[in-house]
Amino acid sequence: MADPDFTGLSCPAPLRDHPQVVLGHGGGGALTHELVTHVFRRAFSDPLLDSLGDAAVLDVAAQLPPGGQLAVSTDSHVVRPLFFPGGSIGDLAVNGTVNDLAMSGARPLVLTAGFILEEGLPVGDLVRVAEAMAAAARAAGVRIVAGDTKVVERGRGDGVYVTTAGIGVVPPGVAIDPAGIRPGDVVLASGTLGDHGMAIMSVREGLAFESTIISDSVPLHGLVAAMLAACPTIRMLRDPTRGGAAAALNEIATLAGVGIEIDERSIPVRPPVAAACEILGLDPLLVANEGKLLAIVPAEGAAAVLAAMRRLAQGRDAVAIGRVVAAHPRLVVMRTAIGATRVVPMPIGEQLPRIC
Amino acid sequence: MADPDFTGLSCPAPLRDHPQVVLGHGGGGALTHELVTHVFRRAFSDPLLDSLGDAAVLDVAAQLPPGGQLAVSTDSHVVRPLFFPGGSIGDLAVNGTVNDLAMSGARPLVLTAGFILEEGLPVGDLVRVAEAMAAAARAAGVRIVAGDTKVVERGRGDGVYVTTAGIGVVPPGVAIDPAGIRPGDVVLASGTLGDHGMAIMSVREGLAFESTIISDSVPLHGLVAAMLAACPTIRMLRDPTRGGAAAALNEIATLAGVGIEIDERSIPVRPPVAAACEILGLDPLLVANEGKLLAIVPAEGAAAVLAAMRRLAQGRDAVAIGRVVAAHPRLVVMRTAIGATRVVPMPIGEQLPRIC
Repeated sequence: MADPDFTGLSCPAPLRDHPQVVLGHGGGGALTHELVTHVFRRAFSDPLLDSLGDAAVLDVAAQLPPGGQLAVSTDSHVVRPLFFPGGSIGDLAVNGTVNDLAMSGARPLVLTAGFILEEGLPVGDLVRVAEAMAAAARAAGVRIVAGDTKVVERGRGDGVYVTTAGIGVVPPGVAIDPAGIRPGDVVLASGTLGDHGMAIMSVREGLAFESTIISDSVPLHGLVAAMLAACPTIRMLRDPTRGGAAAALNEIATLAGVGIEIDERSIPVRPPVAAACEILGLDPLLVANEGKLLAIVPAEGAAAVLAAMRRLAQGRDAVAIGRVVAAHPRLVVMRTAIGATRVVPMPIGEQLPRIC
Repeated sequence: MADPDFTGLSCPAPLRDHPQVVLGHGGGGALTHELVTHVFRRAFSDPLLDSLGDAAVLDVAAQLPPGGQLAVSTDSHVVRPLFFPGGSIGDLAVNGTVNDLAMSGARPLVLTAGFILEEGLPVGDLVRVAEAMAAAARAAGVRIVAGDTKVVERGRGDGVYVTTAGIGVVPPGVAIDPAGIRPGDVVLASGTLGDHGMAIMSVREGLAFESTIISDSVPLHGLVAAMLAACPTIRMLRDPTRGGAAAALNEIATLAGVGIEIDERSIPVRPPVAAACEILGLDPLLVANEGKLLAIVPAEGAAAVLAAMRRLAQGRDAVAIGRVVAAHPRLVVMRTAIGATRVVPMPIGEQLPRIC
């Protein structure tokens, strides 16, 4: 948990009798109440949280246009270390679920957050996680409306695990459906690949590069809305987190029963990320991203979608990296820089454990 | 994890290369896909889960009557042991969130589930947890539509932690609001107190009683619907989980700024639960319940609500245990069996760690 690069927030005054999390903070009594009040309610500050009911009650009718649908998603976050260049488990927990919702074309509305704390966690670290979640939620325009806190004994957790669930509204008419994928469709990447995973690995392995590798953790629903405005018939969106682009492209090929061909020279990878991958023997296609998406779009809409993406910060480096083909159904094949081809297999297991 | 009283389910055949959870099961690749397919999709079997998108998309408009609202809640579950008399972490994870929704008067609609697995967990145990969740979801009439699985190293978890989040529909006209609580209102308990917590403790402490203590884990939304039909102006509902009835009553007294007086002789406690509390030096008012609720109802509706509760299995033993008073605001006071009075304080910390 020691991370000299960050200025730790200190324990709020009312909690100074217990500057580290104790089992009693999970007991549902006065200690739990104190922690919730001075860490979570202070950071998230939402009238629905303040009502302290067992459930938050929302009037969604006003937010749900006729024909609109709800998107629902959840993600557990166990990233190690808790704080890393460009982010922390806090903004990852918000952006991870926001982006899962965004991949269905949804505008995120509310999040819930379940915390599993390890006895001994400095309360100041929990404050930093909560502040990071609050900042990420503000940036994404989403409310954190319900939560829960449990505490486990030392050696039964690892500081803090956060599970978020999210609800979003899918606007009427949006129907992203892989069943529409056809040979000739274009594969777009919204930016450079591998930044998040290599930011984590460079911290864990103590690698020093000329420039620090920064996690790409950002919310993507604004980018998705712009893409859908440019081309309402986008076939599919995936955010390539664990398993990287290789896993996401293989899933798409399998789901749609098509082949996918990508061009190695077109795949955007930052030089320090490429160098770190080289040193650690990792393939950037297998490395996790937390602020990137892959899109399958009809050929006739590709130029308009790319132009719309590039107008936004989250899509500034967007490029076409390949296309859908009738040949080799369910296989992802890469044309390498020297003109050869190789299969990009579905990763089997865990290249980088606890990356998100 | 050893529990000779239960017949363990074995590892599904396609997973027999890895009969215990490995880090790769959390990697987002082929191993994750295998685990999700043969454990979670098999157990939960829902077309929305089968679509394998990043988010589940629901047409809630049909489920949301004009004037209806959405209730949203989440609960993390870290109970130890995973399996205990009357239940498991699986049905607790479903009923816990279903009951949080029910306390706002909502009918539960869908759940999400985030799993944090410890490397080395027998896959057969995970199958049992998933089957228990599926059975509890069927019993509660709720769908599990989205999920996520992460794996942490040995010694960074404890078998399995499950965080569920839920969405429910609050029917139009239902507005359970503690602001309406008035002196003279009646405090009802839906049944015996302390069963869940003492079921867990008797297993952990190896206590043997003449009759086994069974967890009371059940869904309560049917009971709540019947209560609201009998008296639409119910002021408040709470399910007394961690911290027990003492924490729930103190929260109500504080929220509403009223006093609460309860009568010790009227508080229903099963004899083996009372005996176990005696042996362990615990107060049944502080022990967790997972299938009980406390209600504050206007005096004129109390008889009708009690009658409605007693018609259902979940409310068969329902009784009035006290009333709201103008005296001693924010304090809960108990009239003891010998006619004395004592304050029932808000519990401070953790009497029984990891009870849910």
